[in-house]
Amino acid sequence: MNNNGADSAKTDITEQLQAYRGEIDALDAQLVELLAARKKVTSAIGQVKRAHSMPIYVPEREAELIAKRRSQAEAAGVSGDLVEDVLRRMMRDSYYSQHANYAKVDASINNIVVIGGGGALGKVLVGLFQSSTYQVSVIEKEDWPNRKALLKDADAVIVAVPINQTTQIISELPPLPEHCVLADVTSVKLAPLDVMLKVHKGPVVGLHPMFGPDAPGMIKQVVVVCDGRRSDDYQWLIQQMLVWGAQIHQTLASTHDEAMAFIQVMRHFSTFVYGQHLQQENPNLSELIAFSSPIYRLELAMVGRLFAQAPTLYADIIFNNVDNIALLKRFHQRFGEAIEILESGDKASFIERFTEVENWFGDYAKQCLRDSKQMLLKADDGQLLRKAP
Amino acid sequence: MNNNGADSAKTDITEQLQAYRGEIDALDAQLVELLAARKKVTSAIGQVKRAHSMPIYVPEREAELIAKRRSQAEAAGVSGDLVEDVLRRMMRDSYYSQHANYAKVDASINNIVVIGGGGALGKVLVGLFQSSTYQVSVIEKEDWPNRKALLKDADAVIVAVPINQTTQIISELPPLPEHCVLADVTSVKLAPLDVMLKVHKGPVVGLHPMFGPDAPGMIKQVVVVCDGRRSDDYQWLIQQMLVWGAQIHQTLASTHDEAMAFIQVMRHFSTFVYGQHLQQENPNLSELIAFSSPIYRLELAMVGRLFAQAPTLYADIIFNNVDNIALLKRFHQRFGEAIEILESGDKASFIERFTEVENWFGDYAKQCLRDSKQMLLKADDGQLLRKAP
Repeated sequence: MNNNGADSAKTDITEQLQAYRGEIDALDAQLVELLAARKKVTSAIGQVKRAHSMPIYVPEREAELIAKRRSQAEAAGVSGDLVEDVLRRMMRDSYYSQHANYAKVDASINNIVVIGGGGALGKVLVGLFQSSTYQVSVIEKEDWPNRKALLKDADAVIVAVPINQTTQIISELPPLPEHCVLADVTSVKLAPLDVMLKVHKGPVVGLHPMFGPDAPGMIKQVVVVCDGRRSDDYQWLIQQMLVWGAQIHQTLASTHDEAMAFIQVMRHFSTFVYGQHLQQENPNLSELIAFSSPIYRLELAMVGRLFAQAPTLYADIIFNNVDNIALLKRFHQRFGEAIEILESGDKASFIERFTEVENWFGDYAKQCLRDSKQMLLKADDGQLLRKAP
Repeated sequence: MNNNGADSAKTDITEQLQAYRGEIDALDAQLVELLAARKKVTSAIGQVKRAHSMPIYVPEREAELIAKRRSQAEAAGVSGDLVEDVLRRMMRDSYYSQHANYAKVDASINNIVVIGGGGALGKVLVGLFQSSTYQVSVIEKEDWPNRKALLKDADAVIVAVPINQTTQIISELPPLPEHCVLADVTSVKLAPLDVMLKVHKGPVVGLHPMFGPDAPGMIKQVVVVCDGRRSDDYQWLIQQMLVWGAQIHQTLASTHDEAMAFIQVMRHFSTFVYGQHLQQENPNLSELIAFSSPIYRLELAMVGRLFAQAPTLYADIIFNNVDNIALLKRFHQRFGEAIEILESGDKASFIERFTEVENWFGDYAKQCLRDSKQMLLKADDGQLLRKAP
């Protein structure tokens, strides 16, 4: 083949690829139109649901919708996982675009007071109550002297102040109307519940919404509920959270607090130490990221995110409960013991202990591997820590 | 309104919702058809690219494609992030459906020998070379006595045996053809490179593919490249990995090994200790998961996944380099010091140290927060650890 021939062959390929890319572009343009059309329908559904106090997130409908499309996809030679991932991503969007349209579950309830409603979680709650057309008032520090007047007509009082002020604020509450629901949203439950039951004779419930300010609402998020008193009389609040999409997990305050030692204190504390360790070892961070496997980029992102947030929030969570220090000390000791195994070169003992943990995890280990694999693929899709900051 | 009226109103709503759901189903069915049509076009593109040795993953084309659809979406009132996420997910699928169609970059290269080609990473490499129509032979333990005959016509020898056998295997290599490329894919680079340079006079390169067997190939994955000798003569291998979609990160073996102390040893070791800690504290795992925030479920998944894998693999990585023990000991000491701060109740000192780490992370902290937020939303989309195992 002479040079002219090679050139024209090259032009042919370029043209051919260009044509295919045109087809892809046309299909992708159709995709955007389809998303726009779908949004119109889901908005209309949101309006109907709001008008009739129906929950926006219906797990059964979601499961059925996905199952139908998976089987259609597989029949058409398209990956079922692809279709499920795309649908779930679309549904997330449609849930949140219906955000402004939440139903109000009980017409007889009106006055909601959020103490600390200007904070991160407080704002989320205020927004949700307002979207369901409640009358919401916020009490901040400067309003505290007037609390008696501000609280006298309350149907529900939600305490959403920082963890280390919670019990103090509750103990300073004036008498509330007898029907009023008193609730807090702190990340410990035993102590606040105790004080709430003392200061108020009406319905009392301890809540812990298990999500940070990252979450754009309550959809699919766990809210832990610890009963205080007269659960029938705060059921409207539980129902309201279900309308907002929450997954309610009812438990004892003591069980909750024990679990939080792992879920919050242990996690935040070791992340803090890991960050300190990095800072003091001082590796080149951009070099480290350039090298990283998806799993390490994910870990680094989880460490780094802590330090983009308010230190006082984490100091409060970590310092709140001295009981947790013993748990941290046991971790510290185990870390030391594991180093000793490493130093002695005793690989057999390492493998033996590894297997013990594997057995303890049981079937969950495989589930973790399977689910985390999907997350790592998504980390790559989303270019996690791949763009310069 | 009498009861009949209420009943018929309810029927109306049910019918109305039913109609809307029908519209959603019709749109979702169109979506699946669209994905099937798109797959046909991307397969055709894959064939053209293979025939002409062109890379499948072209970052610029990807960026341009996404930018176009984002602006179309925003003009149509659809979230740009939604469209980008959906497109990236679709592209992942199309990259991998083209997997069987990789081009071969150099027609003069034929015989590839993968020593340890039956292992997890070995299999991935064998599959990739085969998909690019190389002649691939695998040498396993039982073939080792015949290595001289098996290696005499090799154009490239890739050592993919477990880390603790790597230098031994390399030192036992017979003389290779002078043009043959000798490479290893172990997770340390200094020692293997050293031995490779000793046993072979031709082109030598140390590689570290930064991904586990989770990754269904090399697309978008980092491969660390440490030069040994005669880089011009192994460029075809680098080019080949680029065709497979790799992101090449060239560096010194010493820099690589230092980074791996963090990325692999530190990470795997502390995950191991955390798993042990959980096992010994013995909380109710399903209760813990039921309680968990998305961020804790993600952490738990990352811990649990370790214990669904082979203990020897991690033992080898962790025990391989005694230099890393000092790094682990410093972490252990910092953990102890942080507990002391906690015990003394010195919140101010905690906050001060927190701020130091925040400053060390600099702009990366915000990037971590932003990127991890997307990951946590995806964790919820994907029901991470939400289904029973």
